[in-house]
Amino acid sequence: MQSNLFQIDAETPWQDLGNGIKRQIYGYDDVIMLVKVKFEAEAIGTLHEHHHSQVTYVESGVFETSIDGKTETLKQGDGFYAPPHKLHGVVCKEAGMLVDVFSPHREDFLS
Amino acid sequence: MQSNLFQIDAETPWQDLGNGIKRQIYGYDDVIMLVKVKFEAEAIGTLHEHHHSQVTYVESGVFETSIDGKTETLKQGDGFYAPPHKLHGVVCKEAGMLVDVFSPHREDFLS
Repeated sequence: MQSNLFQIDAETPWQDLGNGIKRQIYGYDDVIMLVKVKFEAEAIGTLHEHHHSQVTYVESGVFETSIDGKTETLKQGDGFYAPPHKLHGVVCKEAGMLVDVFSPHREDFLS
Repeated sequence: MQSNLFQIDAETPWQDLGNGIKRQIYGYDDVIMLVKVKFEAEAIGTLHEHHHSQVTYVESGVFETSIDGKTETLKQGDGFYAPPHKLHGVVCKEAGMLVDVFSPHREDFLS
């Protein structure tokens, strides 16, 4: 199971998740998956947890980010690490995009 | 082995790799690692391969990207997937930054 080698922004569909959040699925195989997630201002990525390790890059915007009970305001150029099974979530303070990467891949995003 | 939960751009050191390339190490644990790699125009990420799966997001700039013998010109917003042990490399056509993510983590970057 793997994605194409190249992902072109203009050719990649956006999935509308509702509540001001959309995503594009980019590169993946069994052990890794990169996902772009676009947030309107005031959109909320509610606290949740999963067995995957997650690393995220803030591509644009400002996000109040909570991980395992700690909160930081992150802006373009910053990032975070959410360990497996630790509660994490974001509140979008200024519209922007997160680049979320998971290991292993998010089988739930492909079904 | 894991990184801090939050990575703040202004507080994270850049490693100068020479030849117009610098990197910051962001979130990681044993199975994943996110690295920001900044390229000056005409800098070259020479063809190489590794056992890690790699997914990359083009944060800015333009990169002629080769993977397993196929070449595409990628720009801000695009991405790629480099399978384990497949030769890949980039030529930076306009200065910018790649967000590279590996699984498992790059033990060679931490030593």
